[in-house]
Amino acid sequence: MESSALSAPPRALPVAEYERRLRTLVTALRRKGLDGALITNGVSRLYYTGFESTAGTLLVDAAEGPVFVVDFRYILMARKAMPFAKCVLQKSGAPSQVERHVRKWRTAGYEARMSVGDFDRLKAKLAHIESWTAVDDIIAGQRSVKSKAEQAVLRRAIAANDKLYAKVLEQMRPGMTEWDVRGIFRRIADEVGQGESFDTIVCAGANGAECHHDPDLTPIPRRGPVLMDFGVLVDHYCSDMTRCISFGKPTALYRKVYDIVLEANRKAIAKLRPGMTGEEVDAIARRHIKKAGYGDAFGHSLGHSVGMEIHEGPNFSPRESRVIKPGMVITVEPGIYLPGRLGVRIEDVVLVTRNGCECLTRSPRELLVL
Amino acid sequence: MESSALSAPPRALPVAEYERRLRTLVTALRRKGLDGALITNGVSRLYYTGFESTAGTLLVDAAEGPVFVVDFRYILMARKAMPFAKCVLQKSGAPSQVERHVRKWRTAGYEARMSVGDFDRLKAKLAHIESWTAVDDIIAGQRSVKSKAEQAVLRRAIAANDKLYAKVLEQMRPGMTEWDVRGIFRRIADEVGQGESFDTIVCAGANGAECHHDPDLTPIPRRGPVLMDFGVLVDHYCSDMTRCISFGKPTALYRKVYDIVLEANRKAIAKLRPGMTGEEVDAIARRHIKKAGYGDAFGHSLGHSVGMEIHEGPNFSPRESRVIKPGMVITVEPGIYLPGRLGVRIEDVVLVTRNGCECLTRSPRELLVL
Repeated sequence: MESSALSAPPRALPVAEYERRLRTLVTALRRKGLDGALITNGVSRLYYTGFESTAGTLLVDAAEGPVFVVDFRYILMARKAMPFAKCVLQKSGAPSQVERHVRKWRTAGYEARMSVGDFDRLKAKLAHIESWTAVDDIIAGQRSVKSKAEQAVLRRAIAANDKLYAKVLEQMRPGMTEWDVRGIFRRIADEVGQGESFDTIVCAGANGAECHHDPDLTPIPRRGPVLMDFGVLVDHYCSDMTRCISFGKPTALYRKVYDIVLEANRKAIAKLRPGMTGEEVDAIARRHIKKAGYGDAFGHSLGHSVGMEIHEGPNFSPRESRVIKPGMVITVEPGIYLPGRLGVRIEDVVLVTRNGCECLTRSPRELLVL
Repeated sequence: MESSALSAPPRALPVAEYERRLRTLVTALRRKGLDGALITNGVSRLYYTGFESTAGTLLVDAAEGPVFVVDFRYILMARKAMPFAKCVLQKSGAPSQVERHVRKWRTAGYEARMSVGDFDRLKAKLAHIESWTAVDDIIAGQRSVKSKAEQAVLRRAIAANDKLYAKVLEQMRPGMTEWDVRGIFRRIADEVGQGESFDTIVCAGANGAECHHDPDLTPIPRRGPVLMDFGVLVDHYCSDMTRCISFGKPTALYRKVYDIVLEANRKAIAKLRPGMTGEEVDAIARRHIKKAGYGDAFGHSLGHSVGMEIHEGPNFSPRESRVIKPGMVITVEPGIYLPGRLGVRIEDVVLVTRNGCECLTRSPRELLVL
């Protein structure tokens, strides 16, 4: 039906999931000796409440229940969405409800992803707080291991992305521009999910050498490769995939590079184990590419975690000391880029299991020649 | 043509525009006695360079030319896009190129919209800097007054939004859900521009009372009002409009409230003059709504500036002391919300002129009864 461009509105998880997340956070705050934490980032608020908004402060008290302070624009919706939190209206120009509700706190957690300006204003408003502790690591650590409910949503997001890719392949043709193809991705991402999880990258021919190339008016070649990096949002969770295809027979160089990247991807997926650091996993693929003589042409990290944000931690990166754990959902995306000539990247999303990983991306990784 | 879902990729302004912006910033930095400034925010980088990326630091030296430091993923594109800046590759794990290029600085400007964590890391890396000054007000002030080139793009973005609205009206029907209508907005926003400038709000019936209602499966009524708040992106600039329509004859209460809001909108547009503060402009509409007995039902500000971001400063708000100047582009959006009953908001975008303002939004403001 022409009018049903989008599938269905994003659904929140069962209330018990948010209650559990809040309990876990409270336990961590108590362990740190904090009286509570101010959750100010939009994604963090969504993670702990299931409620999406561009404003609001979630006060997580280590002793009492959570309080959500928000302005006129969101208060009615917040009350409907959060049976587990007290929702308080912050009237414009009125005394601060945040200040009122944290009067008993002396030690407070804050998010260092907050802006310097916002934090300065917050500290001035809550001058009675004696010490401030960044809780970003606690939140990131909690978010990095996906619950069963989250894994189920991520599986759906990744399956939707496989579907998106298959549908785009049916519609894209040589002669269309990169921008046209991006338009197809956007339209179908609205049908199979709730839109793109990031701006789709489409690179015709040598544009693939620009890893994050912005789709432009370059035509899809009658004979040559196309690199596509895309994801779809499903119920607030992101998917992410990169595939390269070739119209007509690829050059010998392209085929050679493709096979090196493919093998790097496969090796990393086959060998990664929980307990390794992100650096160790990165090294599996990097060593393979280096040995093949293209070490300098793989200038980015091997992967990043995926969840409610397209880029989460930990990463598979030469500078990642964090340990990989079961339940983490991470991309594996080695690449080789030769400026002016070609670029190849093959990206899957894996779920770390107790003794290895499960590749959630199902689209074939072998070079598709059309 | 089915495949051309998006119109054309976003175009940057002529190079001279960015050179002028950088010169203006340098003048302001010198006046503050700063050796330079580190531009780290994505929109600020785009404003000064025309180059869009998710990473990179623009070093604006008060004595020498600008330097753009960016990683492997963006360096090739950055060099193509910025003939006026030296583009330097930050290799992963290599010594900091930012540090290398600001070694002579002692007093540095930074963006307080940067996260606390990023700023702490930056200060540690650039320990030789003796004093840090937030330059957000300089940048916001510069961005608030739109150049002729920017005004031209904003006019196109707002005209595209008028077109979007007209096309949606042709397609929406009672019985579709709010979510269906949002899908139509998204699809057409890709055709007339480069997508939505923010998540479209569609409120059927009493959902209008939730100012920022998320489109859900509520059907568009056979008899009743619909509130729509939407914008389209054109070449990195945002448009913004709210309209209410009624399927069938509106109730007497709805008509009464609509007329009050419409008159508040008209009065503010008719009476605003450069030289007033944002508070004074807000008061024009607020006074009218208060006199009509609905003061408490207008719980948000009258308007916000619009540009590369959907919410910029200055605002028309009870707490806005900044002075309104010619060249500013600001929304006028009074509203009345009666929970469980109705919500009305009428929003236009105006360009402040030498002796008043020009309303750039052309879609009729009168209640459309279908």
